[in-house]
Amino acid sequence: MLTLADINAAQQRVAPYVHKTPVLTSHLLNQWLGHNVYFKVESLQKVGAFKARGACNALAWLKEQEQLPKHIVANSSGNHAQAVAWAAAQFQIPATIFMPTNVSKIKAQATKSYGANVVLCNTRQEADERVADAAEQTGFYWLPPYNHEQIICGQGTCALEALQQQPDIDAVFAPCGGGGLLSGTYIATNGIAEQQHKQIKVIGVEPLIANDAACSLRENKIMTLSDTPSTLADGAKTLSVGSLTFEYLKKLDGFYEVEERAIAYWTQWLNHLLKVRIEPTSAMSMAAAVRWLKTHDAAQASSKPLNLLIIISGGNIDQKTMQTIWQTDYLTTLPQEFS
Amino acid sequence: MLTLADINAAQQRVAPYVHKTPVLTSHLLNQWLGHNVYFKVESLQKVGAFKARGACNALAWLKEQEQLPKHIVANSSGNHAQAVAWAAAQFQIPATIFMPTNVSKIKAQATKSYGANVVLCNTRQEADERVADAAEQTGFYWLPPYNHEQIICGQGTCALEALQQQPDIDAVFAPCGGGGLLSGTYIATNGIAEQQHKQIKVIGVEPLIANDAACSLRENKIMTLSDTPSTLADGAKTLSVGSLTFEYLKKLDGFYEVEERAIAYWTQWLNHLLKVRIEPTSAMSMAAAVRWLKTHDAAQASSKPLNLLIIISGGNIDQKTMQTIWQTDYLTTLPQEFS
Repeated sequence: MLTLADINAAQQRVAPYVHKTPVLTSHLLNQWLGHNVYFKVESLQKVGAFKARGACNALAWLKEQEQLPKHIVANSSGNHAQAVAWAAAQFQIPATIFMPTNVSKIKAQATKSYGANVVLCNTRQEADERVADAAEQTGFYWLPPYNHEQIICGQGTCALEALQQQPDIDAVFAPCGGGGLLSGTYIATNGIAEQQHKQIKVIGVEPLIANDAACSLRENKIMTLSDTPSTLADGAKTLSVGSLTFEYLKKLDGFYEVEERAIAYWTQWLNHLLKVRIEPTSAMSMAAAVRWLKTHDAAQASSKPLNLLIIISGGNIDQKTMQTIWQTDYLTTLPQEFS
Repeated sequence: MLTLADINAAQQRVAPYVHKTPVLTSHLLNQWLGHNVYFKVESLQKVGAFKARGACNALAWLKEQEQLPKHIVANSSGNHAQAVAWAAAQFQIPATIFMPTNVSKIKAQATKSYGANVVLCNTRQEADERVADAAEQTGFYWLPPYNHEQIICGQGTCALEALQQQPDIDAVFAPCGGGGLLSGTYIATNGIAEQQHKQIKVIGVEPLIANDAACSLRENKIMTLSDTPSTLADGAKTLSVGSLTFEYLKKLDGFYEVEERAIAYWTQWLNHLLKVRIEPTSAMSMAAAVRWLKTHDAAQASSKPLNLLIIISGGNIDQKTMQTIWQTDYLTTLPQEFS
């Protein structure tokens, strides 16, 4: 299993390339909750998402091993595509990204703007097949989105950096797509907690209508969704977690499944309170944090305020999702009134 | 007339209270435009808007004059209300804000959360009358939103700070409501340009359907809109500019009137590119900048890239406006294709 030392090494590797993103808090929200919530804002990361960390670490690690490939390939319709394109450009390696034709124009454009070659395929399945074929060529390297040790370590640098910026955290919340961010968050947080001889809970979050990870944890085996779920949290649409990431997910202190309404509610509120663009996948963690605080408050009525860390995974939202998020006015319902 | 020295003094005064906000840029946007655009992001300012600067400076100046009042009153349904409430709390003075009942719940709530007493009035007119009455009381001070020298100086600290953070700017763009931000921007920019013996253009922007300032400049007298216009740029709904601010507006190098469609277009794009919440009033300046660049490019085909500074006035947007902004997908139309 990976350890804090691996995340520390990744932090050294990616430091010259990625942003040190800010940790924000809202006094108004803290006042309402009676606890302090700190947000690690990866919306302000390169490519607008934590994914830049993993892709960059994987390539920097390959370079360290003197195994830097001649060409990088990947298949993705999401943030991973842009992250790979961007990271490949940092190491001056050509990249080819296979995307389904239904990918948004802006995502394809952004991927191209980092210098990658974008190949549009009729279906996601065709993209999957073509990337596998391409990866067979000598000197070609297929960078997967989450089931890769150095991707996990790269994503873990986000929680590590946040815990360095904001000590005394009691619990960390992160969303679960393929499990890369959550695995890295667990390894970093657990390592720091051990080092400091204290407890820091690590809690995962998933949309209720895309709850393959929660089901997998209940069944103790990896379960796969049969169809792409239509959740607002598009970073959590992944059909299943990975064989590597599942082993870390088993160690979490809690796992929440969140309704779409609560995802929309917290997307509006966090965008409003923090003044930073926050994608629904990230807002989902706030819904979980509120539920977790309620059980904690019930158990310990006289406790002192807790310090929570929420990993805001990114800020990439398409127009269709924005339209859905903002069709109802949730800002008239204050957090203490929402249930 | 006010000078750079007055803005410098204001900067000293507000420094302990306000945030030094970041200047952001988008490499993708710069690549598309062939010029560099720098955004001074006051969305990340206290109360989510530049208004914190003016209110804070006015109170700090009163304190300096040993004329700090016993009670502050203001009438506003917008960012000024929150700014006054927040600033009064910094100087531990009670504040009463008169707001029309149709103000959004969230704005009233935010104003209260800074400790102000909020009085809801049936109409805007009633709010105007009641604040005037309240201000008659001994020790009470009515802080207006823009037509006040120390408010203008406070707002000017935003451009001053930005020009210190990002030297070599060729033109500055700011939106026009009552003209406080724009006047302060003009004074700061003009002062710095004189000091450095160079030219920096200062350009104002207004919604076409709320163009009282543009009409006033054409007629050379202050014109007043008969009704509150229904522009997306709610920070520019002010019915007329002030007697003080109008004198500075006359000195501007240009003034643009922007269509609602272009305001919505650039609100989507700037939110997308910068990953920060940007209100339509601020996005309006980008539409003007693009038009200004076109005339410049036509005049000087072989010129080197220009450096533009755009003052992003704030990040407060209600749900209704968000819904309108995001109902059409403008992200599929790249800036070079939009007209």
